[in-house]
Amino acid sequence: MTDRLAPGAVIGILGGGQLGRMLSIAASRLGLRSHIFDPGANPPAGQVAEFVTTASYDDLDALNAFGRSVDVITYEFENIPTEALDALEALAPIRPGRQALAVSQDRLTEKEFLQDLGLSTAPFSNVTTQSEMNTAISKIGVPSILKTRRFGYDGKGQVRLSGAGSDKDAFAELGENPCVLEGFVNFSKEISVIAARGVDGQVSCYDPGENVHKDGILDTTTVPTVIPAQMKTDAVLLAAKILNALDYVGVLGVELFVSGKELIVNEIAPRVHNSGHWTQNGCDICQFEQHIRAVAGWPLGNGQRHSDIRMENLIGDDVHRIVDLATQDCAIHLYGKAETKPGRKMGHVNFRI
Amino acid sequence: MTDRLAPGAVIGILGGGQLGRMLSIAASRLGLRSHIFDPGANPPAGQVAEFVTTASYDDLDALNAFGRSVDVITYEFENIPTEALDALEALAPIRPGRQALAVSQDRLTEKEFLQDLGLSTAPFSNVTTQSEMNTAISKIGVPSILKTRRFGYDGKGQVRLSGAGSDKDAFAELGENPCVLEGFVNFSKEISVIAARGVDGQVSCYDPGENVHKDGILDTTTVPTVIPAQMKTDAVLLAAKILNALDYVGVLGVELFVSGKELIVNEIAPRVHNSGHWTQNGCDICQFEQHIRAVAGWPLGNGQRHSDIRMENLIGDDVHRIVDLATQDCAIHLYGKAETKPGRKMGHVNFRI
Repeated sequence: MTDRLAPGAVIGILGGGQLGRMLSIAASRLGLRSHIFDPGANPPAGQVAEFVTTASYDDLDALNAFGRSVDVITYEFENIPTEALDALEALAPIRPGRQALAVSQDRLTEKEFLQDLGLSTAPFSNVTTQSEMNTAISKIGVPSILKTRRFGYDGKGQVRLSGAGSDKDAFAELGENPCVLEGFVNFSKEISVIAARGVDGQVSCYDPGENVHKDGILDTTTVPTVIPAQMKTDAVLLAAKILNALDYVGVLGVELFVSGKELIVNEIAPRVHNSGHWTQNGCDICQFEQHIRAVAGWPLGNGQRHSDIRMENLIGDDVHRIVDLATQDCAIHLYGKAETKPGRKMGHVNFRI
Repeated sequence: MTDRLAPGAVIGILGGGQLGRMLSIAASRLGLRSHIFDPGANPPAGQVAEFVTTASYDDLDALNAFGRSVDVITYEFENIPTEALDALEALAPIRPGRQALAVSQDRLTEKEFLQDLGLSTAPFSNVTTQSEMNTAISKIGVPSILKTRRFGYDGKGQVRLSGAGSDKDAFAELGENPCVLEGFVNFSKEISVIAARGVDGQVSCYDPGENVHKDGILDTTTVPTVIPAQMKTDAVLLAAKILNALDYVGVLGVELFVSGKELIVNEIAPRVHNSGHWTQNGCDICQFEQHIRAVAGWPLGNGQRHSDIRMENLIGDDVHRIVDLATQDCAIHLYGKAETKPGRKMGHVNFRI
């Protein structure tokens, strides 16, 4: 284990939101220090990290100084500009690696990658011109959903097609950016698998959780989800297949639709994932520590679930529920964001169920 | 609950060691920020706190600036100089309050306080002169243990009396500082109760844990401890009595000897306590969060134990066990201390048992 970072080493984290914040806390438990890189002033993660760089992702001087000051680089979001990665990769290992980023930054690349692995996805069609848009509608049909290939999250960069005459305007609505048109999948539930892979290739997956969204944003995750045991095994094997194919190091979130007996991959995220927040109170080693262990070259920890949990997100004004939640039997996790905005993730709570 | 601190408020913490570090992490979960005051450079808590002041406890300018920048002041150790408290108390509430500090800073005051409450302590005698030392030896007998009244911890400031001729030199050995001579107690085990009291007077106690010391330093705490149910109840009631008598706000550690059917109070600590570290993996709300909730005027959380835990301290070179422990089913908590020294607490691990 020569690659294993010793206590005192510094984890560089690109992005200082709530995921970077919880990664930093997990790193501290292992005696590791954190350096946050974020373009915004006073990022939430900065409140619990030893070092913070406030600079944009095209500030090469700042990137160089950051890269030289850390022992490994990880990130809390997948949309890191390629130029930043080019500057950083000579200075410290980037984990998960660039292949994982390349695949997950582009919905088309991601879907093709998944299909090449023999995994099921929603039917999809590439849309880079209005003409391709018209072809895609004929091929995929309606209802369907047009998504920008890059930079979409939490329902942003998406337009639903319902068969109305305005469907053809959707491509223009999304700025004529490269898109994929995705067919709807009939599914009974959405589940996700939070999976981890170490530097040594060891794989560990958490129990699948069941997700419910509201207004395009994750609302609750409940673990365990009620699906056949064989399907849980399938979900975990599928996640491991993705990890191995990407020679992945770190935690990966895999969102899956349960459609009859089939598991259809909705999307993958090369990072800790909102649907894995339940692990903070359901397992000894949460997804954040598992990710830090992986990127720091440590052995993965025991991700076994000791408790059943329902995680509830606190979105926007939900944060005012804290006054009441503080009197209830639940574990509160707030993100230290100064301003409450509609749709902004302000925190979450884990209920033992 | 007008007294309740809102997310974004700042907890001032005197002392930046491992207890301050874990308090800071717990505060962050509630959306509260931390400001560490510590005389030493690069305190462990500074790695996970937003603000750090490095200054001595007699630096009035630094104390004033610190006191003005925080919403409440708490501490990780009881030996805070009175002058510092005098300067701070006009600027922000100090919790737990000064009565708790006054009682626990002096072994004599503490023992008299406990006896006044009707609680049992080891037999003791005040020693401020050599003549009183001789009287104390006659009264308490040997074996017994001479302890400085102030500034003792982890076996420091103590001399054992065994009946040898050198016993009479013990007072000089401890610098002729005010001492108490304590008689030995025959006990079958040492347990401790980690108890919390809120601003509203609500009391919550964790299950008693069983402590084993090595070389005068806590080695392991195991929960639950095997004692009669009635004795657990007695221990908890006794802790609540202490909390109420001190109009206490925060977490208090109470060390108890089990002697036959009797519980004898060894000492109390007006802060989070090493023997309560098991709560991090045995409860949803750990002692650190419970303390922060109390001092921030929040309702206390649910301190119920969901798992049985054995906590092992990593003292000095024990920290090298981490390489092996990382492969085991346990939760690691390192303190981010740069230098390993004999007797220094470097971290702890919690095993689910």
